[in-house]
Amino acid sequence: MDHLQQEFSVRFSYPVFFTDDLFNPANLLFADFFNASASTIRRKLLFVIDSGVVEAHPQLVDSIRAYVTQHLPALDLVDDLLLIPGGEVAKNEPDAVETIVDAIDRYGVDRHSFVVGIGGGSVLDMVGYAAAISHRGIRHVRVPTTVLSQNDSGVGVKNGVNYRGKKNFLGTFVPPVAVFNDSTFLTTLDDRDWRAGMAEAIKVALIKDRPFFDWLDSNATALAHRDLPAMQYLIHRCADLHLKHIAGGDPFEMGSSRPLDFGHWSAHKLEQLTNFELRHGEAVAIGIALDTIYSAQLGWLSQSDADRVLALLRTLGFALYQPMLDANDSADVLKGLAEFREHLGGQLTIMLLTSLGTGVEVHEMDDERVRQAIVQLKRTEPQPA
Amino acid sequence: MDHLQQEFSVRFSYPVFFTDDLFNPANLLFADFFNASASTIRRKLLFVIDSGVVEAHPQLVDSIRAYVTQHLPALDLVDDLLLIPGGEVAKNEPDAVETIVDAIDRYGVDRHSFVVGIGGGSVLDMVGYAAAISHRGIRHVRVPTTVLSQNDSGVGVKNGVNYRGKKNFLGTFVPPVAVFNDSTFLTTLDDRDWRAGMAEAIKVALIKDRPFFDWLDSNATALAHRDLPAMQYLIHRCADLHLKHIAGGDPFEMGSSRPLDFGHWSAHKLEQLTNFELRHGEAVAIGIALDTIYSAQLGWLSQSDADRVLALLRTLGFALYQPMLDANDSADVLKGLAEFREHLGGQLTIMLLTSLGTGVEVHEMDDERVRQAIVQLKRTEPQPA
Repeated sequence: MDHLQQEFSVRFSYPVFFTDDLFNPANLLFADFFNASASTIRRKLLFVIDSGVVEAHPQLVDSIRAYVTQHLPALDLVDDLLLIPGGEVAKNEPDAVETIVDAIDRYGVDRHSFVVGIGGGSVLDMVGYAAAISHRGIRHVRVPTTVLSQNDSGVGVKNGVNYRGKKNFLGTFVPPVAVFNDSTFLTTLDDRDWRAGMAEAIKVALIKDRPFFDWLDSNATALAHRDLPAMQYLIHRCADLHLKHIAGGDPFEMGSSRPLDFGHWSAHKLEQLTNFELRHGEAVAIGIALDTIYSAQLGWLSQSDADRVLALLRTLGFALYQPMLDANDSADVLKGLAEFREHLGGQLTIMLLTSLGTGVEVHEMDDERVRQAIVQLKRTEPQPA
Repeated sequence: MDHLQQEFSVRFSYPVFFTDDLFNPANLLFADFFNASASTIRRKLLFVIDSGVVEAHPQLVDSIRAYVTQHLPALDLVDDLLLIPGGEVAKNEPDAVETIVDAIDRYGVDRHSFVVGIGGGSVLDMVGYAAAISHRGIRHVRVPTTVLSQNDSGVGVKNGVNYRGKKNFLGTFVPPVAVFNDSTFLTTLDDRDWRAGMAEAIKVALIKDRPFFDWLDSNATALAHRDLPAMQYLIHRCADLHLKHIAGGDPFEMGSSRPLDFGHWSAHKLEQLTNFELRHGEAVAIGIALDTIYSAQLGWLSQSDADRVLALLRTLGFALYQPMLDANDSADVLKGLAEFREHLGGQLTIMLLTSLGTGVEVHEMDDERVRQAIVQLKRTEPQPA
């Protein structure tokens, strides 16, 4: 039978800026972005802010109001700046998405307007999702405030919320129109969040970028001691690698290409087994350690290289053993492999290391070898004094 | 300040097939599509069907089961074929989307699997939306069953549901992976749906394709008498024009480009003013008549051409006057202009005609002239005997 073939491409483009003190009246970066696309149409700005960020930066809302009044006279600030709770647990609450969608409706935020999300990855995921489904897509701008969101999730193209307890069950692939990475927000992170965000940088360095791994290794002590310029470099380089991976691959994951998920099969499971007391980056650090040891056990990675990885993670302050790893003879954590297979749609794909900076995909993991890696991980973990 | 610039394109491609008796065991079109992309991964097929279609085709569910068993052994049919109500009013019910999302969850329909929607535009909109937001996008296949969905909405890239009574407030731009236009479904449409779907064909002919308008004019009597081959030609040509408009323009409407909405400003309002008793195509026919008369009043279109348009619409059986047009001295329907402006984000853009087959955009409409066009429309409407 005859048919018509539809074919088209859609181009996506967005800048990722690196700055500090974004809403300081002397910093015109944010204003310049909006003013560059001047329009005869009145456009609105709806801000949605992580309530934890406002606690750490109590002047933020006033600063935004003053900044928009002074520098963005052509835009209408929605007077009601929304504050929503952050953190992974917040993503289980459909209320936040509904709150944002309702504000878009109530304040007439149309397809020429902008929703600006300020916060950690969870808040940005929810803001991006609410913007993506309202009016078939309102432009959204991200201001990530954590290491993890500035170097990884916040510069990418995904959004989502949990649904019936399933992580990111609802979501879309929709890029932001701009990302503003403001390092001032990093100064008020607690130590756990400062540290946890670095796990994704180590991950991407290990599978893609040996010189970056060497840099991390050389700067581990500075990073552990909260050296801000070192962290700015880490974020810039990690974000760059993440952006290139997206652009060079299959941005909306329409084929079988997979995201950069070294160390993630056990990490996802450990987060869940600890009721998310373990933060994502903390779980990823353990997952990296486990799959690094596994790679060494296979003889693919030298023991000295594996030791370097573990030493780096420990210098940065990560705890690499968690009791859930060997609870129930590790049967619980090994369920993570089956779930990861299901998540990937039936075929398991796991990244392992053949050298520092080189990842390779495999399609099976041996349960017994995973157990041995867990034993080794536990044995090498420094005991509390 | 320095920045990174992300740039990538995403390619979309999908076939629109024209066939009849899609699930007849002798028709391999549907099977061939899925079998062409054979995979080592077990893929699932979740069917969601317009309950009105099943009423008209009671054997449909059994036919699908038999067809999949016989021709698609490599796919797992989700045994629970979902039936959901169709029609514009159904889009006000968030339940249907939740029902589909929950089935995707419960039956483990993953990103390698397919959701197949069978029905009119409303059902396809809801199925497409549920698929688009689940797991950040499950592949979806459309089997449009009405004239309107086969020639227009079902072959495009939009989906959506109403939210708090606002039409398509929630939705996304996500193309299907395939569309199967099965003309067998057209044979059981009631006369109103058969007729209403032709309004979009007249619309696109008037603004883009004079030869198609002439063809419609020559075949109006056959179309009015439910000549199926004539309707198949109408659908094929209208779908082709619609696909080309999408591919040649701004498929996801990220800029200021607008869809093909001649005659739609008053149509949307009339649908609402009649509590959707007027179907979309019926309202569009009135909207086309009104803006055609308006174009003639401006002297842009000859009176004889305008008369041809009205005569064609009437031959097809459309009623071109509706009492809501001049209720409240037409103030109610004129509110549609303000709402259309708001929908477009502040700047009004209306398409008018300069000849049969040529549309031109204007940015204002004169209320008094609209009233005069309504008077003329009412005056020329044949009175009931």
